[in-house]
Amino acid sequence: MKIVIIGSGAMGSLYGGYLSQSNEVYLIDNDPEKVDIINKNGIKIKEKDGDKLFYPQALIDSSTIGTADLIILFVKALFSRSALESNKSLIGKDTYVLTLQNGSGHEEILKEFVSEDRIIIGTTQHNASIIEKGYINHGGSGKTNIGMLTKETNQLMPIKETFEACGFATDISSNIQKIIWDKLFTNVSASVLTGVLQVKLGYLIDNEHGLFLVKQLVREAVQVANGDGMGFDEYEVLEKVKEVLINAHEGYTSIYADIRDKRKTEVDTISGFVVRASKRNGVPAPTHEFIVELVHALEEKN
Amino acid sequence: MKIVIIGSGAMGSLYGGYLSQSNEVYLIDNDPEKVDIINKNGIKIKEKDGDKLFYPQALIDSSTIGTADLIILFVKALFSRSALESNKSLIGKDTYVLTLQNGSGHEEILKEFVSEDRIIIGTTQHNASIIEKGYINHGGSGKTNIGMLTKETNQLMPIKETFEACGFATDISSNIQKIIWDKLFTNVSASVLTGVLQVKLGYLIDNEHGLFLVKQLVREAVQVANGDGMGFDEYEVLEKVKEVLINAHEGYTSIYADIRDKRKTEVDTISGFVVRASKRNGVPAPTHEFIVELVHALEEKN
Repeated sequence: MKIVIIGSGAMGSLYGGYLSQSNEVYLIDNDPEKVDIINKNGIKIKEKDGDKLFYPQALIDSSTIGTADLIILFVKALFSRSALESNKSLIGKDTYVLTLQNGSGHEEILKEFVSEDRIIIGTTQHNASIIEKGYINHGGSGKTNIGMLTKETNQLMPIKETFEACGFATDISSNIQKIIWDKLFTNVSASVLTGVLQVKLGYLIDNEHGLFLVKQLVREAVQVANGDGMGFDEYEVLEKVKEVLINAHEGYTSIYADIRDKRKTEVDTISGFVVRASKRNGVPAPTHEFIVELVHALEEKN
Repeated sequence: MKIVIIGSGAMGSLYGGYLSQSNEVYLIDNDPEKVDIINKNGIKIKEKDGDKLFYPQALIDSSTIGTADLIILFVKALFSRSALESNKSLIGKDTYVLTLQNGSGHEEILKEFVSEDRIIIGTTQHNASIIEKGYINHGGSGKTNIGMLTKETNQLMPIKETFEACGFATDISSNIQKIIWDKLFTNVSASVLTGVLQVKLGYLIDNEHGLFLVKQLVREAVQVANGDGMGFDEYEVLEKVKEVLINAHEGYTSIYADIRDKRKTEVDTISGFVVRASKRNGVPAPTHEFIVELVHALEEKN
């Protein structure tokens, strides 16, 4: 399969590396130095049992590759539109576009570039972080979940097969919205709070007030999701979020780093998703509305 | 009138200074150095037209003074109980206790020490800041509003008279709860936000997201107040808060400084008042609940 990964950050490099074992894989990145390093040395992935090395091709300009079978979008959500815009030549009539990005609501942007029956929404339980250019740490593993907006899932079999052949356990879901919500709960509660409070994830389970805030955000988000007929149980969702806090106790989030460095965060695709769903289905989400604006006010501080 | 002011911070010094013109005034403070300076040099108050000097007596231990006609409580709300406890000997059967402290809900603590018909609740539009020990800047003037919990306001005439004789324009109100709410709106919106965001007051009117947050907190607080039959107009309240933001554009708040210095803030008597009223009257205040916990989580960050 001809697979182009747009955005070769930690997660893009992880998927790009492993998928290159049995596919024609291209990594698109706008950092010339990183592209050179990958083409020269390959991508090194630190696993618990040692380093692994893969050789996908890295490029800045994708215009010479022709159309792809599968594009995987791994840029920050803020850059989705411009990334697709500048790599338009990859999109043919048979090209699938898969987003494994954080947050939700990406389908709106994808629809500007491909028809609905070519859009794949996915989530991943893997996590990875950058050690240096061309070298990443594979921190945790798990399922990759993929589904079609159109609910026609047969087309996903070849993708599932090649993912699994390359080591990514993959589930096909016919209710992708529920998977997206399920994944979102941690981001719209714990991740956002690590940004606002400027703390590690563990603080939110160690500090009683931190945990109160997590609970309030989870409760509201579950109510909004259930207003969309998702049928989540608040207690179960909270237990899952708490598990993340315990497992990633010393972890920082990208929203933490973005606020610390006064960069624009992805809060509009994270908590903003809850706010938009709330406005659509009429289930109130005042705390999520508040936190979106709070994060923007923090981003824009001098 | 024999007036004892407990807490000689900026505001205590301002009232203590001016009231000493025609009353027997004692300032109680637990800083021996400050007490010495005041007793030696007096209290110097910087006005727009120059410095003024007053000579109230300063003391650490009030046990030798006997009972007071009027006690004015000017300590931070957190210390109200311990301040009254250690100055109990000032309270006789005819002693009035007046609180001009920030925030609301002080009456609960005052009731532990004096009967309800001796409690005076007040607000002040004056503001002052410390230049150095014994020297304060009188930043802004305005009304002093006082009322009785019991609504029997005749007893307040002598206090109004002595306040006005000393330069404090004073109104007696028979609906003190409304005055307290009225003053609280700025504290539960703008002041709390300057703490959470770590910004000057002016940021909240210059930044669109800051202003959104102010509006949401004002809206909820007005709804809760009106649930108590106060009859506030949301638009009018917001205009008043905005006026404060414009006038005090470069100003910092105590809640800003407390969070910056990782001290315990007064948020429980500020936003906590809205939360308690909300629980009592059933009008929801989710954002105020959220912000109280957010402030505590920030206070407790290592």
